[in-house]
Amino acid sequence: MSPTTVTTSGFLQVLATQIRAQDPYGVYRTWSDQRLLQPFILTKDEKRKIPVDTPVDPVTRGRITYFHSAIARQIEQKTGQLMQVVVNLNEEGFGWALIFSGKLLVVTRTLRDAQRFGFTSLELLQEDGEKAVRSGIALAEQFPEVTQA
Amino acid sequence: MSPTTVTTSGFLQVLATQIRAQDPYGVYRTWSDQRLLQPFILTKDEKRKIPVDTPVDPVTRGRITYFHSAIARQIEQKTGQLMQVVVNLNEEGFGWALIFSGKLLVVTRTLRDAQRFGFTSLELLQEDGEKAVRSGIALAEQFPEVTQA
Repeated sequence: MSPTTVTTSGFLQVLATQIRAQDPYGVYRTWSDQRLLQPFILTKDEKRKIPVDTPVDPVTRGRITYFHSAIARQIEQKTGQLMQVVVNLNEEGFGWALIFSGKLLVVTRTLRDAQRFGFTSLELLQEDGEKAVRSGIALAEQFPEVTQA
Repeated sequence: MSPTTVTTSGFLQVLATQIRAQDPYGVYRTWSDQRLLQPFILTKDEKRKIPVDTPVDPVTRGRITYFHSAIARQIEQKTGQLMQVVVNLNEEGFGWALIFSGKLLVVTRTLRDAQRFGFTSLELLQEDGEKAVRSGIALAEQFPEVTQA
């Protein structure tokens, strides 16, 4: 590990694990978590340059799914309830990211300009993920009977 | 209206209305509801002939969305709660149809072999739709606070 490598923890680590789980050829084995998460980081300028009049490309779509799967996995860990993830995007990059258990939606996020999905820093990526995890856990604890319905 | 036309009511009528709402050129204006709903009816043999190793074609995808939108509209009418519809299908015709309000999923249906979406008769189409409407209304009445969450 090089001395400049940021050691990831919490949400970022779970997110990296999600990505590593989809690496049948072991390409990412020698990569640091930070390198693995780099494509999630976009400056405002980089975002602006991505056109939003075309469908979301499969790699970006994959990143959106990894992000929400990481949220779901953390909510599962804390609540013991299995979570389903559905990411639904239309041709214009609008749609929904949903995480649910039984009949309870613990996360409902509308997506727009999903072609430009990204965060300006690793810290903001972590913050946004953990915010969704916290509110998801709170909902699962508030309505446990709905997760069983 | 020809004497052999079945007059639709309840769910089938709402479903026909969903389809007519997406008819900007008025092509369906002179069509009976029954003719409009005919593509929802497939014999077992017709289903078997539809390959399931290709993505769901847009017209079939549209029918799946109309069907669940009709369910959502009827639940809205009875409960006064706005419902969102998400139909999520992967390349292999597997996925979810979800209807929700606030944080409550009133309908969660897994779809498989969605390429073959259809019913063997109008009666079965109506029955299946109304069954989902009834259980959706029951859930919305059981957990009203979750639709507001």
